[in-house]
Amino acid sequence: MTKRPLDILDQVLNREPVLVSLKSGREIRGVLQGYDVHMNLVLDQAEEEIEGEMKQVGTIIIRGDNVIYISP
Amino acid sequence: MTKRPLDILDQVLNREPVLVSLKSGREIRGVLQGYDVHMNLVLDQAEEEIEGEMKQVGTIIIRGDNVIYISP
Amino acid sequence: MTKRPLDILDQVLNREPVLVSLKSGREIRGVLQGYDVHMNLVLDQAEEEIEGEMKQVGTIIIRGDNVIYISP
Amino acid sequence: MTKRPLDILDQVLNREPVLVSLKSGREIRGVLQGYDVHMNLVLDQAEEEIEGEMKQVGTIIIRGDNVIYISP
Amino acid sequence: MTKRPLDILDQVLNREPVLVSLKSGREIRGVLQGYDVHMNLVLDQAEEEIEGEMKQVGTIIIRGDNVIYISP
Amino acid sequence: MTKRPLDILDQVLNREPVLVSLKSGREIRGVLQGYDVHMNLVLDQAEEEIEGEMKQVGTIIIRGDNVIYISP
Amino acid sequence: MTKRPLDILDQVLNREPVLVSLKSGREIRGVLQGYDVHMNLVLDQAEEEIEGEMKQVGTIIIRGDNVIYISP
Repeated sequence: MTKRPLDILDQVLNREPVLVSLKSGREIRGVLQGYDVHMNLVLDQAEEEIEGEMKQVGTIIIRGDNVIYISP
Repeated sequence: MTKRPLDILDQVLNREPVLVSLKSGREIRGVLQGYDVHMNLVLDQAEEEIEGEMKQVGTIIIRGDNVIYISP
Repeated sequence: MTKRPLDILDQVLNREPVLVSLKSGREIRGVLQGYDVHMNLVLDQAEEEIEGEMKQVGTIIIRGDNVIYISP
Repeated sequence: MTKRPLDILDQVLNREPVLVSLKSGREIRGVLQGYDVHMNLVLDQAEEEIEGEMKQVGTIIIRGDNVIYISP
Repeated sequence: MTKRPLDILDQVLNREPVLVSLKSGREIRGVLQGYDVHMNLVLDQAEEEIEGEMKQVGTIIIRGDNVIYISP
Repeated sequence: MTKRPLDILDQVLNREPVLVSLKSGREIRGVLQGYDVHMNLVLDQAEEEIEGEMKQVGTIIIRGDNVIYISP
Repeated sequence: MTKRPLDILDQVLNREPVLVSLKSGREIRGVLQGYDVHMNLVLDQAEEEIEGEMKQVGTIIIRGDNVIYISP
């Protein structure tokens, strides 16, 4: 069975945190609350690891063109 | 319930300042007054931290393709 | 009330000079005479600060994809 | 006989792992579970070689614009 | 009165040379003979300053996505 | 007679290997088995020269936006 | 009279070699045999100057998004 990439995202909405790897090298972890066809993402309870420490960033909207991959 | 990324922006219009992280590494904080489907943004009372000091930049229109994320 | 980003530009046409911040790090100041949906801009009486000196560049047409932000 | 690039991907769905070479220099190997016209990919049992060690990354959704090539 | 960016180009067709600033840092000067909606440009009698010397490049077609600005 | 760029590719399908020069500086040689309007390519019996040695990479699908040129 | 950029290319088809300047800094010279709206180009009898020596590359298809300018 084939899974369309964006359909996979449906299965992880409001569940365990996902890891989002960004082109800038940043990695952000949070609960996926929404997305659209551009891979614009809404993450809740998001946190980013900066120099070994987790920084809480709350709710964020990520512009899809920054995404390398999303790991549920 | 799924939230579409751009709908989240509706909820923060004209409220507390949001933080906008840009691809150039710059971060700008301001009250969101408007946006469109490209994530072009209008920020009011905007300020940017440059070398540890806050610089007031008033009202600005940010072109959406510069945005990494928006944090309400 | 929501303001659409490009509508804001209407309000500053032919008034006080605006500051345009470009991706290359350049900043150009001038009177906004026109724009389109790509954020292509026409600036009149434009000037650019280069190494601390203002260089007059007259009328210029900026291709929109170079813009980071416009500050009226 | 001509093969359309995306049709080739159909033939490797849910079979042997494929190697995905990304623009950032990263290489990820996994079982292709899905794709779309943008070359957005779903890889299962994915693993990435980082400094000589294989890191298990489980299921990931790769945004297509990061892809250099896919090697079935 | 609002001027649309591309309409300004109409006014300088086949007149005084314009200066075209490119993303690569190059600057080319020439008589504008044509353009299209992508800001693809035709310059005649074009010349480029390279290391302090003017190099004649004749007629050239510039792909629009290289343009930072055009100065009539 | 004018030849459209993509039509040229039709003439080299399943014949002698072509050389594909990529933006990353990589060069890959292989038998062209398919392509589409984005210049996404399928190469069979592909090989890449890495540090003076030919590495066999079998069949690969190259995303078109990586291509500088294709030399039949 | 206004000349549309792509129409100029019609006039140099199958005539004297044109010089194509690419974003990577490479310059390729060859007889223009075809083009399309993306500025994808077919060059015949193409040659590239590499470290002061002309390398014959035969017929090549250049992807348009690499082009800075074409000089007939």
